[in-house]
Amino acid sequence: MALTVYNTLSRAKELFQPIEGNGVRMYVCGPTVYGHSHLGHAKSYVSFDVVARYLRFSRYAVLYVQNITDVGHLTDDADEGEDKIVKQSRADRVHPMQLAELYTQSYFEDMDALNNLRPDISPRATGHITEQIAIIEELIRKDLAYEVNGSVYFDVTKFPGYGKLSGRTVDELVAGARVEVNPDKRDPADFALWKRAEPGHIMRWPSPWGNGFPGWHIECSAMSMKYLGESFDIHGGGLENQFPHHDSEIAQSEGATGKLFAKYWLHNNMVTVDGRKMGKSLGNFVTLKDAFQRWRPEVIRFFILQSHYRSTLDFSAAAVDGAARGHEKLVNTIRNLRDRRRTAGAGEDPGIEIARYRASFIDAMDDDFNTPQAIAVLFDLARETNQRLDSGRDLSVTSLTALDTLFTELAGTVLGFTLEADGHHPEAESDPEGHLVDLLLGVRAEVRAQKLWALSDMIRDGLGRLGFVLEDKKEGTRWKRKS
Amino acid sequence: MALTVYNTLSRAKELFQPIEGNGVRMYVCGPTVYGHSHLGHAKSYVSFDVVARYLRFSRYAVLYVQNITDVGHLTDDADEGEDKIVKQSRADRVHPMQLAELYTQSYFEDMDALNNLRPDISPRATGHITEQIAIIEELIRKDLAYEVNGSVYFDVTKFPGYGKLSGRTVDELVAGARVEVNPDKRDPADFALWKRAEPGHIMRWPSPWGNGFPGWHIECSAMSMKYLGESFDIHGGGLENQFPHHDSEIAQSEGATGKLFAKYWLHNNMVTVDGRKMGKSLGNFVTLKDAFQRWRPEVIRFFILQSHYRSTLDFSAAAVDGAARGHEKLVNTIRNLRDRRRTAGAGEDPGIEIARYRASFIDAMDDDFNTPQAIAVLFDLARETNQRLDSGRDLSVTSLTALDTLFTELAGTVLGFTLEADGHHPEAESDPEGHLVDLLLGVRAEVRAQKLWALSDMIRDGLGRLGFVLEDKKEGTRWKRKS
Repeated sequence: MALTVYNTLSRAKELFQPIEGNGVRMYVCGPTVYGHSHLGHAKSYVSFDVVARYLRFSRYAVLYVQNITDVGHLTDDADEGEDKIVKQSRADRVHPMQLAELYTQSYFEDMDALNNLRPDISPRATGHITEQIAIIEELIRKDLAYEVNGSVYFDVTKFPGYGKLSGRTVDELVAGARVEVNPDKRDPADFALWKRAEPGHIMRWPSPWGNGFPGWHIECSAMSMKYLGESFDIHGGGLENQFPHHDSEIAQSEGATGKLFAKYWLHNNMVTVDGRKMGKSLGNFVTLKDAFQRWRPEVIRFFILQSHYRSTLDFSAAAVDGAARGHEKLVNTIRNLRDRRRTAGAGEDPGIEIARYRASFIDAMDDDFNTPQAIAVLFDLARETNQRLDSGRDLSVTSLTALDTLFTELAGTVLGFTLEADGHHPEAESDPEGHLVDLLLGVRAEVRAQKLWALSDMIRDGLGRLGFVLEDKKEGTRWKRKS
Repeated sequence: MALTVYNTLSRAKELFQPIEGNGVRMYVCGPTVYGHSHLGHAKSYVSFDVVARYLRFSRYAVLYVQNITDVGHLTDDADEGEDKIVKQSRADRVHPMQLAELYTQSYFEDMDALNNLRPDISPRATGHITEQIAIIEELIRKDLAYEVNGSVYFDVTKFPGYGKLSGRTVDELVAGARVEVNPDKRDPADFALWKRAEPGHIMRWPSPWGNGFPGWHIECSAMSMKYLGESFDIHGGGLENQFPHHDSEIAQSEGATGKLFAKYWLHNNMVTVDGRKMGKSLGNFVTLKDAFQRWRPEVIRFFILQSHYRSTLDFSAAAVDGAARGHEKLVNTIRNLRDRRRTAGAGEDPGIEIARYRASFIDAMDDDFNTPQAIAVLFDLARETNQRLDSGRDLSVTSLTALDTLFTELAGTVLGFTLEADGHHPEAESDPEGHLVDLLLGVRAEVRAQKLWALSDMIRDGLGRLGFVLEDKKEGTRWKRKS
């Protein structure tokens, strides 16, 4: 089999073939940095991290660009309202770039915790004003855009393909437009490329049309084409960005260059809470920092990848708890087989059919990155591994090593799961902490026998700080973990 | 006493008074991101981190901007040669921005490890092309700059104060100029604001003078004034940047605005190896990542702050080992007093004169951030604390709490030292085994101090059985897991 991906442009699964040779150039719409990331962000960026990981595993040379939106994203997610970052920065009484800096840091912190590999380039929208202006100038030259009162709009009637990604027609768009249409626009469906900055608007740059700031869509055209070329392989993002964001990106980019913009459009579905989209605007979001208080980041990652990226993922504590149990099962299997490997013999054994499992995993991933199916293959493999470990028939060092390598490759490298149980070192014997505490108690018994009370206290207090409670009884000292 | 700082502009210590009220706006020249940071970078950024920390401790509201140079820094550190990032990216066969991204990440990783607080805004030079062009246009308008063949130069003969920071005169500059003077320059001392991009030069932007890229100096004028205003309080950087970088910044900025640029210029001295400057260009540098293999980051921090920021710091392994012992002494004192606090009584005691130590520490820091003197105060305090802990006379809970608070505030908050005795490695928080081993080592250090060799051996042997190897070194005992 070969990799097929669902292309929103064609609404079908297509055989994946990069534009040029072995290189895959991929752009994914990154976060607007005006608050901490929530589970909805995690679903998007974990999904595309697995896309990048799997493409690399499949021997493609991936160049992954993911932007940081630090200007231009307005509160209505279209052309009206306030800049989200400016609004929040006023509330927090800091400079907008201080706010952007803070939440950019926070974003990467959370993504690192989720074990997403960093994109190769993380360009900022404010860092590409020159490039955005250059495209807008080209669109005006080609008569696809017009200036009114210091703002510039894209004329959607001049670009016949407008709406081809989302499948909306200009007529539908106009019918669906808000009652109060911006009188500067020739057509209600036109969208802003550049907005005049009103007096007092802090985020502003000089431009051929006076001081202003870029529209939300133009940044992605500018940054993707700058680093990936005018035509590139994959453009990813959330389903909700198909319109107007991605359709506008296509219109601007293809309008300016006359070339295909992105070949494959991949969209992840949303996280829901009781069936409603989780989102910052809706106020029903769970930040990752809060979620990490309750669950380990690798459990959140597991929870996300247990559903397909194009399916909705309904969030509930019970569902994540369920994912935690599944994750634990997998991790325990790997720990057990690693433990067994230390004592296993070199002899021959009827090994597990590793190649078959590997092929099934690849088949699943080749089918539009079907991670739930790929995880199911890992569970099948875990089940057979456990049966063999529990049975009398021992697996040889060779088989156990091959199993370890396979889990490390598929669960670790491709899906990005952390394979260490509870942060214990898998290569240590079970409960290495317990052994260390026992050693401390042995030393303590000895120092008490020598009446060295300060040392005895030092051990008790030290253990207390680390969460261990001691109970001195006649028959000796026992310890337990503080709950 | 009040804070005095050595101002390079006046070559004297001056009373520190912010331009406006209680706010301190501070800009520090950040790294050029084309390689891993080395000890020279650490000295600069730890020094200014302590400046920011101490100003905040002194109740100033600090806005700290530190840039990332990702374009325009040429190999000759002036106007000729190749862009350092472009050159390295060609060697590594990656896009220059991929290289910049990688080393920006690496930089923050190392600074985080050193416990430097993140600057409030970390703007990128490539992210401020528009702002740089705007200043250059203004300088041309004011006849302080001229365009030749698509490049723009600052005319130093038109700005009488050129060289006022470094104390160099234009005549000296001309006399010292290279034999091959760029024929585009009217005066050999003129410096580039914008350089024409030759064909094939990948880092290029459109400008009123054609495609090109900014000179190295203009970025700092653009980014500092954008976020801090045309006049701000502190400009920091390395001594070697006084000329031409900082003098050029002053000429550009004051030329464009007609206002004072920065009120206080603070310069840190360099790290030397056998008396020669440590630097990437000289090839005698020790990267932080290498240094962290041998010493904990907090030891490197301690080593740096044991000398004054305006003094050179001579690097040798023996010197850092010495710092490790000093650091350990301080940390042990704090650990001991915290341990004692758990069992201390509430009674009255002739407490240690905490207010006096605090005042001495502040006096030292008020004297141009004299960290070696401030550390000496902490050692005096530690000595008295240890004497009292060792003596029969117990300190009360109140005194011990006050001592703990003082150490936490001065050594922790102001100097940024990690005070956890078991800071074995940064990930220790999530390493419960590591904590237990550290506790065992603490007990072992104690029993060895009491010459209880059998107990010491019991601990070493017990740890050995559990897979931990101990190495007794001068600066203390280290452990590692058996491989």
